[in-house]
Amino acid sequence: MTGRTVSVGAVDTIGFAGLGLIGGSLARAVRESGFADRCLGWDRSDDVVMRAVDLGIIDGRCDSLRSLADAVDLLVIATPTRAAETLLEELLTLAAEGGPSPLITDVASVKGSLCRIAGEAPAEAAQRFVPGHPIAGSERSGVEAARADLFRAHRVILTPLDCTSAAATQTVAAMWESTGATVVELPVDEHDAVLAATSHLPHAVAFALVNTLARSERSADIFRFAAGGFSDFTRIASSDPVMWRDVSLANAEALVEAIDSFSAQLADLRGAIESGDGAALEATFRAARSARDRCVAELPGAERKDTDRSD
Amino acid sequence: MTGRTVSVGAVDTIGFAGLGLIGGSLARAVRESGFADRCLGWDRSDDVVMRAVDLGIIDGRCDSLRSLADAVDLLVIATPTRAAETLLEELLTLAAEGGPSPLITDVASVKGSLCRIAGEAPAEAAQRFVPGHPIAGSERSGVEAARADLFRAHRVILTPLDCTSAAATQTVAAMWESTGATVVELPVDEHDAVLAATSHLPHAVAFALVNTLARSERSADIFRFAAGGFSDFTRIASSDPVMWRDVSLANAEALVEAIDSFSAQLADLRGAIESGDGAALEATFRAARSARDRCVAELPGAERKDTDRSD
Repeated sequence: MTGRTVSVGAVDTIGFAGLGLIGGSLARAVRESGFADRCLGWDRSDDVVMRAVDLGIIDGRCDSLRSLADAVDLLVIATPTRAAETLLEELLTLAAEGGPSPLITDVASVKGSLCRIAGEAPAEAAQRFVPGHPIAGSERSGVEAARADLFRAHRVILTPLDCTSAAATQTVAAMWESTGATVVELPVDEHDAVLAATSHLPHAVAFALVNTLARSERSADIFRFAAGGFSDFTRIASSDPVMWRDVSLANAEALVEAIDSFSAQLADLRGAIESGDGAALEATFRAARSARDRCVAELPGAERKDTDRSD
Repeated sequence: MTGRTVSVGAVDTIGFAGLGLIGGSLARAVRESGFADRCLGWDRSDDVVMRAVDLGIIDGRCDSLRSLADAVDLLVIATPTRAAETLLEELLTLAAEGGPSPLITDVASVKGSLCRIAGEAPAEAAQRFVPGHPIAGSERSGVEAARADLFRAHRVILTPLDCTSAAATQTVAAMWESTGATVVELPVDEHDAVLAATSHLPHAVAFALVNTLARSERSADIFRFAAGGFSDFTRIASSDPVMWRDVSLANAEALVEAIDSFSAQLADLRGAIESGDGAALEATFRAARSARDRCVAELPGAERKDTDRSD
């Protein structure tokens, strides 16, 4: 391993493996904030990384993950969950074999699968990995949509492992704070259960709902008479199928548990409708309205309009 | 019964029983279009009807449903489902007893319960009732939010009974067309099944989803980390609990059937997640995305932003 010091605060060079909306926005933000002097990038698509250079988002490109790891102090894996697993394994193997060992963090929306991979690596490699997840996104995707203010007033969750060095966690937290985000630490299981409930379950429900309508014998009339609420309610069913396949598989256990809780609630509601129990229905609807109104009132302003598409 | 002629096209006087967003907007629209010379109103709240007079939405007020029925050619019951049932029964009883018998229509989002009431009335009274449902609404409610263009480029579904006079249906259709809406006729069962799928099921699902999160042992963290997508996805869970209690009860049969279809789809999805069937998940998500994108592309422009809150 190379002997870089883990220091809190600004770093010289940050590398981005993956330059989509999240990686590109983070690169813009850390340069604007002065947290990093230099940003380098690598993406499995040459076009994307060259576009990022052309747009002035990064200072230069590397032609492999290894050469990126060798050139930077901090490497951000900015890809969806499944690709992040592969890249993390590769980086930890490199470090364990005495290759380059920058600090590593990621932005994937499921943390358990990455933490399991890190848990199987030698501790001297794994201690330099800080799992992270910015709760931010946009309707738009790709490096062209990158903006320096994407994370401002949004939350970033870090889920350090037992072996993660405190200094590494502090550096990654400082990086996010420099973008205007608020950093919170959560145990990895807690993160995955919370995200299953707030993001992965709603997606599963929206996908199932749209398919219910599409497969109905009345689907032509159903789609013909769908009103505006339908568009809002099902927006997340237009999310990327491959990304959501991977998220669902990576967070299967917590998601199945969330689906079961939801199904029990829906079964209760169905029972009240069938038995004509108006008092139970009104109480159920009233509870939902006040919980939802309380929650939305507390959302950061920007999040009310954006969709979490970070993964 | 009084002997007014059922004539196609413009009428002299329209009456509104209920002056919320829908009734108020329809009053504005029919005066702007010239379909009616004069609008009268009655509401169980005196304040509301006096406010409507002050705002110039109606020309005058009546102090009972009976006096309204006596004064108008066409009476629009512009209340939510449950209240509409009561008012329709009262109007049909008046007509059957030789009292005033204007043409009657309504705007409630469930049609089966009103059609059953009309089906039990003498045909000479019921033939002058044309069940209707404008698929339009707004985030705002109440007579202050009334606008003449609320129905423009939106669909209105009429579900005439076997006994409904063709001339009555034509007059009500002409009224809606004068507002810029497109009028479609559907069998009543078809209407209620389609609305169960496109509107009532999504509301039930949103209510159940929010309650799942609120009742979780992790609810504090769940609401703390809810992202922007949550706000869109659950907007309809902030709908009026009493109104949705009534809609759910009035359309119980079709709604239970829709919940069962949805639950079967969700159970399939859960199975694919639990068994790690990535191909099935991707196919499911892909099908949902293309169905949703096709549907939204065909929505009238205005409906993309508005929420169906007509009932």
